[in-house]
Amino acid sequence: MLNGRSDVSPGTRARIEQLLEVHGYRRRTRGSPPAALIEIVFHELESVWAMELIRGAENVAKRSGATVALTESGTRQAPGPEWIEGVLRRRPLGVLLVFSTLPESVKRQLVSRAIPFVIVDPAGDPDPDVPSVGSANWAGGLAATRHLTDQGHRRVAIVTGPEDLMCSLARLDGYRSAMAMAGLDAGPELVRFGDFHVRGGFEHAMDLLRRPDRPTAIFAGSDLQALGVLEAARVLGLSVPGELSVVGYDDVPPAQWSSPPLTTVHQPLQRMAEEAVRMLLRPANAKRAAQRIELATHLVVRQSTAPPAHR
Amino acid sequence: MLNGRSDVSPGTRARIEQLLEVHGYRRRTRGSPPAALIEIVFHELESVWAMELIRGAENVAKRSGATVALTESGTRQAPGPEWIEGVLRRRPLGVLLVFSTLPESVKRQLVSRAIPFVIVDPAGDPDPDVPSVGSANWAGGLAATRHLTDQGHRRVAIVTGPEDLMCSLARLDGYRSAMAMAGLDAGPELVRFGDFHVRGGFEHAMDLLRRPDRPTAIFAGSDLQALGVLEAARVLGLSVPGELSVVGYDDVPPAQWSSPPLTTVHQPLQRMAEEAVRMLLRPANAKRAAQRIELATHLVVRQSTAPPAHR
Repeated sequence: MLNGRSDVSPGTRARIEQLLEVHGYRRRTRGSPPAALIEIVFHELESVWAMELIRGAENVAKRSGATVALTESGTRQAPGPEWIEGVLRRRPLGVLLVFSTLPESVKRQLVSRAIPFVIVDPAGDPDPDVPSVGSANWAGGLAATRHLTDQGHRRVAIVTGPEDLMCSLARLDGYRSAMAMAGLDAGPELVRFGDFHVRGGFEHAMDLLRRPDRPTAIFAGSDLQALGVLEAARVLGLSVPGELSVVGYDDVPPAQWSSPPLTTVHQPLQRMAEEAVRMLLRPANAKRAAQRIELATHLVVRQSTAPPAHR
Repeated sequence: MLNGRSDVSPGTRARIEQLLEVHGYRRRTRGSPPAALIEIVFHELESVWAMELIRGAENVAKRSGATVALTESGTRQAPGPEWIEGVLRRRPLGVLLVFSTLPESVKRQLVSRAIPFVIVDPAGDPDPDVPSVGSANWAGGLAATRHLTDQGHRRVAIVTGPEDLMCSLARLDGYRSAMAMAGLDAGPELVRFGDFHVRGGFEHAMDLLRRPDRPTAIFAGSDLQALGVLEAARVLGLSVPGELSVVGYDDVPPAQWSSPPLTTVHQPLQRMAEEAVRMLLRPANAKRAAQRIELATHLVVRQSTAPPAHR
């Protein structure tokens, strides 16, 4: 009838079209379903993690005919109110949040609109009732430190992440356990809390390496912090790994590009995002199965570690 | 009438609803226009450029209430046929292509569906009839090399990018002009074509630095190649900048994180993406004005360059 059938007079047709317009109907465009989006929200796109997570999400989304959309939230720990308005308008298939915490109000709004969400959390410790994908931080900290003690290092320092992130504490506890297993004392002067950025690694390493009883190895807690440790060693004229061994964490691409290439703990960021998108795309009744996934980490030995020169 | 008005009988109402359904109309959801997308297409998301370009696009898109969607095309130089089908279905406000060439068929399909597109091109030399945003490669190559010759270097090598990319040739010509301006000979043994990755820089630097008449400075053509040059210097026991000066190109974040931090040519990748999205969002009749924008590059002096030890 409306679509050009001849048994409708032009006048009737026009009146109906007008009514439809007034009452809020619109023509469905043939062959153009709305874009199926998987939305990723970062608090900062600067993160070296961001690209790895995007690639993982894109891998899985593409196979389902979905497109990855990116949004950045201004605030550090949780998406802000403008973001939630936008996401309710865009109605993505699901939302992948790269945040440690999800405010109760945001969670409620996503649930009430039936928009699935998963937290991908390389850093923190999400609420138990929120679906999330993380990785084994304690085991990673243990593996990094054991690698150093196995090589014969006795003074091993750690620059972990910020004190308020669970992953920093888990990596630190892994370090402490490995030190204890090797019968070594992890004195308080050897334990530092950084910022997960190059500067934090640089400053703590400058301080540690200027001590008369300087460590022969530093577990840097993140690859960026490890790059800062390398720069401190260069400034102080210490060769790596000859005079100082350095272990990073994350295994983001810059770990391979550094000089020397970094021994580091591989956090499977791409696979974490892949798992998260799979959780989002799973039928609703299959979702309860795996509320929290934790993927394994493993040590990647490159050239920034060696046995200490003098035992 | 349709939206619950009382002067329509339930029977009429149901019949009209059914007709609308059959003939392809659907209810417009109040306050839910379809997601306004700006689509970015990369041939490889691994690129260190990718994140910078995404951030630039996101900056401008956000202000217009648009969302950045990402797609990756499998092929190296141009988007493939599956991609064009997807984009015609998604109907974004515009497409930002991070490619050197746009196949005639893809161009025709985007034009015929009135989907605006802009090439952001840090590497190549797009067709003159395609709107594009690039940056000043020749001037960048000149500035990098002049910085070295001004410091007194006489044997300056270049590892530019692949021979089939216009940007590699433009940077090389800038190098040649700066060498000529300083009255220096850019012998063929000093000119290398790399791959824009760490490995290319490493391998060419190993070869250059093992020569008896080794250069005292290398203009590396990209930051990743410069990281490879730093690694070659470390392996060969040459200090940077004491025994070798290194200049990168791009000024992506790893340039600041390297040890020593890299002197490099800043290519304004974020601003390039911002300009491109502004071009996409401009009203159609204002689009002819600036078909091709080229943004300036400038040298950023950090710690990988110094006067040569022996002149």
